[in-house]
Amino acid sequence: MSDHKEFRDLETPDVLRETLAGLDIEPGTETVALDDARGRVLAERVDAGIDVPGFDRAAMDGYAVRAADTFGASETDPVELEVVDSVHAGDRPAVALESGDAVEISTGAVVPSTADAVVMVEDTSDREPDADGDDARERVVDVRTAVAPGTHVMAAGADIAAGQRALGPGTLVTPREIGLLSALGVDAVPVHARPRVAVVSTGDELVPPGEDLDHGAGEIHDVNTHAIAAGVREAGGVPVVYEHVGDDESEMAATIERAASECDLVLTSGSTSASAMDVVYRVVEERGERLLHGVAVKPGKPTLVGTIDGTAYVGLPGYPVSALSIFRTFVAPRIRDAAARPPTRTATVDATMATRERSEEGRLRLIPVGLVEDGAGATLAYPVDKGSGATTTLTAADGVVPVDPDTNYVDAGDPVTVELFSPSVRPPRVLVVGEDDPTLSRALDDVAAPRYLAAGTRSGRRSRRDGVADAAALAGPDADDALASDDVLGTWERDWGLVVPAGNPDAVDGLAALVDADVSFANRDAESGLRARLDDALDALAADRDTTRDALADEISGYALATRGHQSPARRVADGVVDVGLGLRGTAAALDLDFVELGVDRVAVVAADDRRDKPGVRDLERALPDGG
Amino acid sequence: MSDHKEFRDLETPDVLRETLAGLDIEPGTETVALDDARGRVLAERVDAGIDVPGFDRAAMDGYAVRAADTFGASETDPVELEVVDSVHAGDRPAVALESGDAVEISTGAVVPSTADAVVMVEDTSDREPDADGDDARERVVDVRTAVAPGTHVMAAGADIAAGQRALGPGTLVTPREIGLLSALGVDAVPVHARPRVAVVSTGDELVPPGEDLDHGAGEIHDVNTHAIAAGVREAGGVPVVYEHVGDDESEMAATIERAASECDLVLTSGSTSASAMDVVYRVVEERGERLLHGVAVKPGKPTLVGTIDGTAYVGLPGYPVSALSIFRTFVAPRIRDAAARPPTRTATVDATMATRERSEEGRLRLIPVGLVEDGAGATLAYPVDKGSGATTTLTAADGVVPVDPDTNYVDAGDPVTVELFSPSVRPPRVLVVGEDDPTLSRALDDVAAPRYLAAGTRSGRRSRRDGVADAAALAGPDADDALASDDVLGTWERDWGLVVPAGNPDAVDGLAALVDADVSFANRDAESGLRARLDDALDALAADRDTTRDALADEISGYALATRGHQSPARRVADGVVDVGLGLRGTAAALDLDFVELGVDRVAVVAADDRRDKPGVRDLERALPDGG
Repeated sequence: MSDHKEFRDLETPDVLRETLAGLDIEPGTETVALDDARGRVLAERVDAGIDVPGFDRAAMDGYAVRAADTFGASETDPVELEVVDSVHAGDRPAVALESGDAVEISTGAVVPSTADAVVMVEDTSDREPDADGDDARERVVDVRTAVAPGTHVMAAGADIAAGQRALGPGTLVTPREIGLLSALGVDAVPVHARPRVAVVSTGDELVPPGEDLDHGAGEIHDVNTHAIAAGVREAGGVPVVYEHVGDDESEMAATIERAASECDLVLTSGSTSASAMDVVYRVVEERGERLLHGVAVKPGKPTLVGTIDGTAYVGLPGYPVSALSIFRTFVAPRIRDAAARPPTRTATVDATMATRERSEEGRLRLIPVGLVEDGAGATLAYPVDKGSGATTTLTAADGVVPVDPDTNYVDAGDPVTVELFSPSVRPPRVLVVGEDDPTLSRALDDVAAPRYLAAGTRSGRRSRRDGVADAAALAGPDADDALASDDVLGTWERDWGLVVPAGNPDAVDGLAALVDADVSFANRDAESGLRARLDDALDALAADRDTTRDALADEISGYALATRGHQSPARRVADGVVDVGLGLRGTAAALDLDFVELGVDRVAVVAADDRRDKPGVRDLERALPDGG
Repeated sequence: MSDHKEFRDLETPDVLRETLAGLDIEPGTETVALDDARGRVLAERVDAGIDVPGFDRAAMDGYAVRAADTFGASETDPVELEVVDSVHAGDRPAVALESGDAVEISTGAVVPSTADAVVMVEDTSDREPDADGDDARERVVDVRTAVAPGTHVMAAGADIAAGQRALGPGTLVTPREIGLLSALGVDAVPVHARPRVAVVSTGDELVPPGEDLDHGAGEIHDVNTHAIAAGVREAGGVPVVYEHVGDDESEMAATIERAASECDLVLTSGSTSASAMDVVYRVVEERGERLLHGVAVKPGKPTLVGTIDGTAYVGLPGYPVSALSIFRTFVAPRIRDAAARPPTRTATVDATMATRERSEEGRLRLIPVGLVEDGAGATLAYPVDKGSGATTTLTAADGVVPVDPDTNYVDAGDPVTVELFSPSVRPPRVLVVGEDDPTLSRALDDVAAPRYLAAGTRSGRRSRRDGVADAAALAGPDADDALASDDVLGTWERDWGLVVPAGNPDAVDGLAALVDADVSFANRDAESGLRARLDDALDALAADRDTTRDALADEISGYALATRGHQSPARRVADGVVDVGLGLRGTAAALDLDFVELGVDRVAVVAADDRRDKPGVRDLERALPDGG
């Protein structure tokens, strides 16, 4: 609608990377306490300020001796030494050894400067002196082995000596580096500061999570602010969230300018509204420089890079999937770099594309895909795309398949390399696609690492047929048909019917009332088994009345209102939006609504026949009702 | 020395794992704010409480229409509709569409309930009505394409519908999950609590980093407390550090009991002192149960597992390398598990053992190894072991090679699998072994990811010969000899001599004074090139005096005091421990000491001849003086 949204010359992803690399985001250095240093990166070399250990240290329990006194000692001919003292870790040696003396010593204790070796306790025998009138010695020890000078002594500085290089600049501090720094007595270290990254929310329609939405006014929850703030933290930055409410353009401009003055990088995101973007463009034009606008990546085309008052600025697309995709692929690595963190190794998985996916020439396509292992253990990738505004794509996908700008499509069966969202991503252990059912959802709580795409019975049937789903969740007539199969993992019944307000104010008593009475209705979508039950019942009623289902449907106000979840129609009843909703007895009870039963539906979860032996499928079978 | 330290029946690593698995560490659940949820694991299923989107949402900029009005429209024969309103994101539609009407609409805006499709702006032409006296319409739009109901409309609940399963229990919360939770309006989530892990320091000889040590009294800095606390945090636990100072046994027992009452797991560690361990054993015996003592793992034998007042307890070995090895291999995975975090995938690297390393039958050996790439890009592993008390092993190693209890040794050339300390570990880009030299240390600040083992000139020569070091740092006569080589990457000179207190109170004027005057001396170790210079000078003096070097050395009080770092002797002069130290002019200056020059030493950094083309070696050459 606006000139700003036309992108005549899209830049390549490489140019975007170079432009981001050219921004000045680096925040300098700071000193942090040792206990806060984990995960930080040293800004300067740390040299040892002391010898470690700071003294000649006994490496064994035993006796400190003059090595020369032991020369010639053996099992059969031990050397007898007088025990003149004992030294434990943390003791200051009190006695100087003369030739013929030994000092009992513990691991970690100071070896007296007059000794030069330690004999292990296992090679000695402590005893009373031989009965001899003129032996004034209280204790003696037989040493049964000869030791060389330095034996079992860790010399001062042998671990690391004063002045030696301990850790170089650029070192990532892990528990091991904290160990070495502790040994050196260092309790604070110079590290690269974490870049402060402003996350500015710019949409009038955005409402923070936790607050109520006015759906009718087009309000939605602000997704990007929190997700990107978490991504900034993950990349080693410090997110600074600037909440902008209201539609005062000068106030929004002031917020962005304040963010630029307080942070090392400003990210705007969160809005698809043209007016909000207009403000951003104006601020960049007036107070900074537009460096890049529009990139040949899908999703993510409308990315904007520039400066505001000299501070780096990136405008992310409004849709969460697009915003997070651009953030993850391009911006997060730049933040990591500014924080001097080592780059993450992109974790990839080789997979086979399960279904054909078209692409668009001229743009790098990042296809979100989910992963599933087939019966032979091979990894399949299937496209996850519920529309560009969908947030469930974020969690239903495991990674992306990059498709070159000059490729038109990826075919089913093509080998692809999946860039995982993180190295810890694993394919779900079992993938269930099909009817949205609360019993199934609860049962999955007892299954490790499941994925459940509740896209409807028809989707489940298709996905199982296409070799994607491990199991299809079927309801309606499809479930009845499936019962004969050997691959049923579990099956159960559920009462279906009409959900009405408590007290049933319209006195709805059955399907006929829906057709005949002046009530509004919320239906389910055609993918659902529940909708198939309703349509079958309408067929039966039409037969009774000698008419057609379509004719009856035309009489139902809202028959075409096809909502997507098992609770959606009931919620509309609860919210007073409609009078009657298609749903389940359990849903009505949960929402304190009344219920007019129309019949008993069946749900059957049916495995793909090549997946019966997958451990996750077996787990699912155990968790399901009647699952044996 | 104590009965406790005898381990007649060492348990296998598997028994240790099972014993740890049997401990009750699980801390229950808690609710955290969305912004604190990253990295946490959901304790319960999160269902969608609302339809997302909550309204039929325009997926494109364009015009909301009744689809039926567009049927038959084409490029050549557009349909003309009246534009009766416009709706932006965040607006509440004000006007009901009649047949023939269109509403200008922005991406993200509410599609009026009286419309059922959106025509993209690209497929329309907005214009003034044709001049016609009785046309009261202000704006019309030509629609040049037919659309079906639902086109470019994201139906309410199409992303996720009320009641649907959004995220299951056990889900790790990443920025993507935070995005979905935001969309659902969730601002706090139930997560598994992080186990509170007490880290109890129990050694009288331990001094916190940042405080001064009394070396003579055997004090060392407390390494384990901070390193293990960092490890606990990395594993998903909350470390609670209990500092114990002093040697009051009843107070130490009280500290351990308090830790047991306040935490989910108590770790003691940090001491090798028998008395401290006695207290721990007594507390476990009196107030709990000893479940396992002694495990057939090297390092880590004296590991103790039990309970104290019903709380899980693990006693780690005292030496940092042992303590952290047991912690990393056995305890950290258990803490991760208690925090319900997914297990880390152990990152491994296939390598070739560079040198032979003996093992010990009957115990699983975890050999700390460093990694280096040879000239052909193959990865070599070399043992890193500076003695069991060394902390530099922690940072000089990249991982461990596990060696079975029934294997005696790993031979040079054997293929081994290295378990990396973390998946982000990379071999250093260049490995320099040899003389400890401050100029080299500074130069390495300009080289990415170097490793410098300043173990002395002789070590460097050996390591280069053995095919381990990329480059040897040579000083003393070895450096002179190396100058003819084509493989010299850089070379420089340094003044060497005697470091004396400021003002030179003993009027030391040269080497002869060291022999003849009554002064104490701190020497360097025989690995160093500097020591070789001293010995050469003593040879010359001996020749002058017609005696032997050994005879002169006998006259030097402290000739045998072989310290390990270039600064170590000078530090002893500064501390007043000795009168004279062997060292460099720069060191004397840095410590405000005086310097008696005895000669000019040379340092030469010499590449291994098969490593000249390694990028890290080239970087090193560029960074070194005279390195061209």
